[in-house]
Amino acid sequence: MTRTLSVAVLAGDGIGPEIIPPTLDILDRAARLAGAPSLEWHHVDAGAAHYARTGESLPVAGMDIARGADAILLAAMGLPSVRYPDGTEIAPQLELREAFDLYAGVRPIRTVPGVPLPLADSRGASLDAVLIRESTEGLFYCRGRTKIAEDDSFASDEMRLTRHTSERLFAFAFDLARQRKAAGKPGRVTLIDKANVIGSFAWLRRIFLETAERYPDIETECAYVDAMALNLVRRPWDYDVMVTENMFGDILSDLGAALMGGLGMAPSADIGDSHAVFQPCHGSAPDIAGEGKANPTAMILSGAMMLEWLGHRHDAPTAVDAARMVEHAVSAAFADGALLPGEFGGSAGTAAVGQAVLERLG
Amino acid sequence: MTRTLSVAVLAGDGIGPEIIPPTLDILDRAARLAGAPSLEWHHVDAGAAHYARTGESLPVAGMDIARGADAILLAAMGLPSVRYPDGTEIAPQLELREAFDLYAGVRPIRTVPGVPLPLADSRGASLDAVLIRESTEGLFYCRGRTKIAEDDSFASDEMRLTRHTSERLFAFAFDLARQRKAAGKPGRVTLIDKANVIGSFAWLRRIFLETAERYPDIETECAYVDAMALNLVRRPWDYDVMVTENMFGDILSDLGAALMGGLGMAPSADIGDSHAVFQPCHGSAPDIAGEGKANPTAMILSGAMMLEWLGHRHDAPTAVDAARMVEHAVSAAFADGALLPGEFGGSAGTAAVGQAVLERLG
Ligand SMILES: CC(C)[C@H](C(=O)O)[C@@H](O)C(=O)O
Ligand SMILES: CC(C)[C@H](C(=O)O)[C@@H](O)C(=O)O
Repeated sequence: MTRTLSVAVLAGDGIGPEIIPPTLDILDRAARLAGAPSLEWHHVDAGAAHYARTGESLPVAGMDIARGADAILLAAMGLPSVRYPDGTEIAPQLELREAFDLYAGVRPIRTVPGVPLPLADSRGASLDAVLIRESTEGLFYCRGRTKIAEDDSFASDEMRLTRHTSERLFAFAFDLARQRKAAGKPGRVTLIDKANVIGSFAWLRRIFLETAERYPDIETECAYVDAMALNLVRRPWDYDVMVTENMFGDILSDLGAALMGGLGMAPSADIGDSHAVFQPCHGSAPDIAGEGKANPTAMILSGAMMLEWLGHRHDAPTAVDAARMVEHAVSAAFADGALLPGEFGGSAGTAAVGQAVLERLG
Repeated sequence: MTRTLSVAVLAGDGIGPEIIPPTLDILDRAARLAGAPSLEWHHVDAGAAHYARTGESLPVAGMDIARGADAILLAAMGLPSVRYPDGTEIAPQLELREAFDLYAGVRPIRTVPGVPLPLADSRGASLDAVLIRESTEGLFYCRGRTKIAEDDSFASDEMRLTRHTSERLFAFAFDLARQRKAAGKPGRVTLIDKANVIGSFAWLRRIFLETAERYPDIETECAYVDAMALNLVRRPWDYDVMVTENMFGDILSDLGAALMGGLGMAPSADIGDSHAVFQPCHGSAPDIAGEGKANPTAMILSGAMMLEWLGHRHDAPTAVDAARMVEHAVSAAFADGALLPGEFGGSAGTAAVGQAVLERLG
C-alpha cells in the first residue's frame, strides 16, 4: 500500500477557487481518520481566466502535473465572456477527457436525505442510480471539426461512435452493475439510445447486446432517449445503471442532478483506463463567484468518489473507508433539513456547509 | 369562409385505430356546436403493419390524399417488431415531416387540472409553455445517411442545420410568442442549444439573435440544453416559448410531457408553410393495443390544435371556437380528479375518457 497519493488540483474559474479549500480540508481529515494514505495536493492553474491572461487554457506544465498525479480534482471551468474565436467556450475539462481518454463519465443520481427535492412521489427521496455518460466521442467528436458552408447556408457537425470505446464503456457499466449487485442493488444496465431513428445508435445497440452476453447475471434493457427523459421524471427509482452517448448523457445527467436537488449536490467522475478526473456537475457560476455563497457539496462528494477510486486502484481499502466517511458526513450534515444552501432558499454558504460536513466527520 | 374542411386521417398502428374514433366524434360535435365548417375525414392506411403487409409504409395514394387535404391527423405509427434492414423503425411520421417540410414541431407543455402530476411544487400544476422542436433536420438529417466503417470500427452520423429552416423556425417561435403576449402571457423566447461546445450551435445562436432583432417587443434568452433539462424539472413555470433543434426537442418535449402527467396527455403539431400534421406525442403502445385501455386525451387535444390551426388558416374563427370548446371539455372532464386513465392507476379506458369529454361539450 502506498503511503501518499498525489492529486492534481485544478480550481479553475468562478466559484472553483472557493469550493476547493473546504473540500481539501475534509478529504485530508477523512484520510487521516481512516488511516488512509495521506493526500498530496498539487495545484494547477488553468481555465478561462488563465486563457484570458496567457492565451493557454491548460498549460503544458499543468498537463504534466495532471498526467503524473494519481488523480485529478477539478472544480469548475469556463466563463461566458471568454470564448474561442468560433464562439464555443474554453473548457479544459473536455481537453482532459480527450487527452487522458476518460471515456466513462460516472454521474451518480443519489439523493441526500434532508435536501429539498422536486418530485411529489416519496420514492423520489431515496434514489440510488448511476448514469454512465460516454465522455470522449459521440456528438462531442465534432469539437474543432464543425463545417460551415461558404455561403453560410448551413452548418454541420459529425457524431461518431467507435467500437473500441463503446466496448470499454459497456464493460465498465456492466462491471459497475455487478459490483452494485454484490452490494444488494438490482444489477441492471439500461442502454439509452435513439436506435429507432439514428443508424449509428442501431449499430451501438448491437455492440451493447454483444457485451451483455458476457454478463448473464446482469439484467439488460434498451430505451429511447426521449422516453428516458420522461421516465426519469415519472419513475427514476426504477433504474440502476444507465449508459449512454456523450450528448445524451450530458442532458440526462443534468436531469438527474435536478432529481438530487440541483447541480450543487451532483458529483461526477470521468474515468479512463489510466487516469481519472473528479469534478462537480456544476459550472463556474460567475454570477455568485467571490461571495462565499457557493454550495461545495457536489465538490466534496466528487472528492469522496476520488477517494473511493484511489482506494480500489491502489489497493488501499482505507481510502475507500475515508470515502464512505465523507459521504456519511455529508448525509449527517443535511439530515435534519436545517442546512440550506442558497439554491434552496437558505443562507448556508460555502464555509458553513464545509464546516458542517467537517464536524460530522468526527 | 369554407363550408367543409378535409382532413386526412392516419390511424396507423397499435392503439392508433382505437383512439381515432372517439376523437373524430368529439371534433365533429365541437365543429357543429360552434357553427364551424364541417369536417370531412379521409382515411389513409399507413404505418408499420401496413409496411409488413405491403412493403410500403406510406403508399403514394395515401400521400396524395394527405397532400390534398386541409390538414393531416395522425394517431400513432411504428411497431418494435417491424424494422427497416438497418435496424431503425418504420416511422412514416418522419417521412411526412420531410415531404411536407413541417419544420415547426409545436409541443405545448400545458397542464390539465385534476390530472396527477409529478412535481411537488404547486406551481407545477399550472404550466402553460410551448416547446418548438425543429422537425426536419438537425441530428435527424442523418436518416438514411449513416456511415459505418468497413471494418466496423466506427459509425458516424451528421447533424445539419440550415439557415433557411432556422430562420423560418425562429420567426415561427417569435410570432407565437407575440400572439401569446397579446393574450397576456410573458412573450419570451428561449433558444436551447449547446453553443458552448458544438460549433453549429454557436452558428445557430447567431441566426437566432439576428431574428430576435426583428422582435424588439419579445424577450430573448439562450440556454444550454443540459441546463434546460434541469430547469424544466426545477422551475418549468419560468418558461414561455422555447425553440430548439430536432433531437434536443425530441428529448425535452418528452420531459415536458412528463410534467403534464405523461404522453397520454401530450398533444403536438408539426407545422410547415403549406401543410400540418397533428398527432399525440405518444407512440403506438403495442403492449396495450386492442384492449380499449389507451388514453385518447393527447389525440383529442391534438385534434383541438388542428381545429385552431385550420381556423386561423381558412379564416374560420368558428373553428378556433370549436378548438377552445374541446379544450374546455377536456379540462371539465378531468377537473374533479375522478377520471383516471390506466397510466394514473385508474381504470378509465378509451371509451370512458372519450365519453366524458363528449358529454362536457354539451
Ligand atoms: C461545460 C461543458 C463543456 C460540460 C459538458 O458539456 O461536458 C458540462 O456541461 C458537463 O456536463 O461536464
Ligand atoms: C417515433 C419517433 C420517430 C418520433 C421522433 O423521434 O420524432 C417520436 O419520438 C416523436 O417525438 O415524434
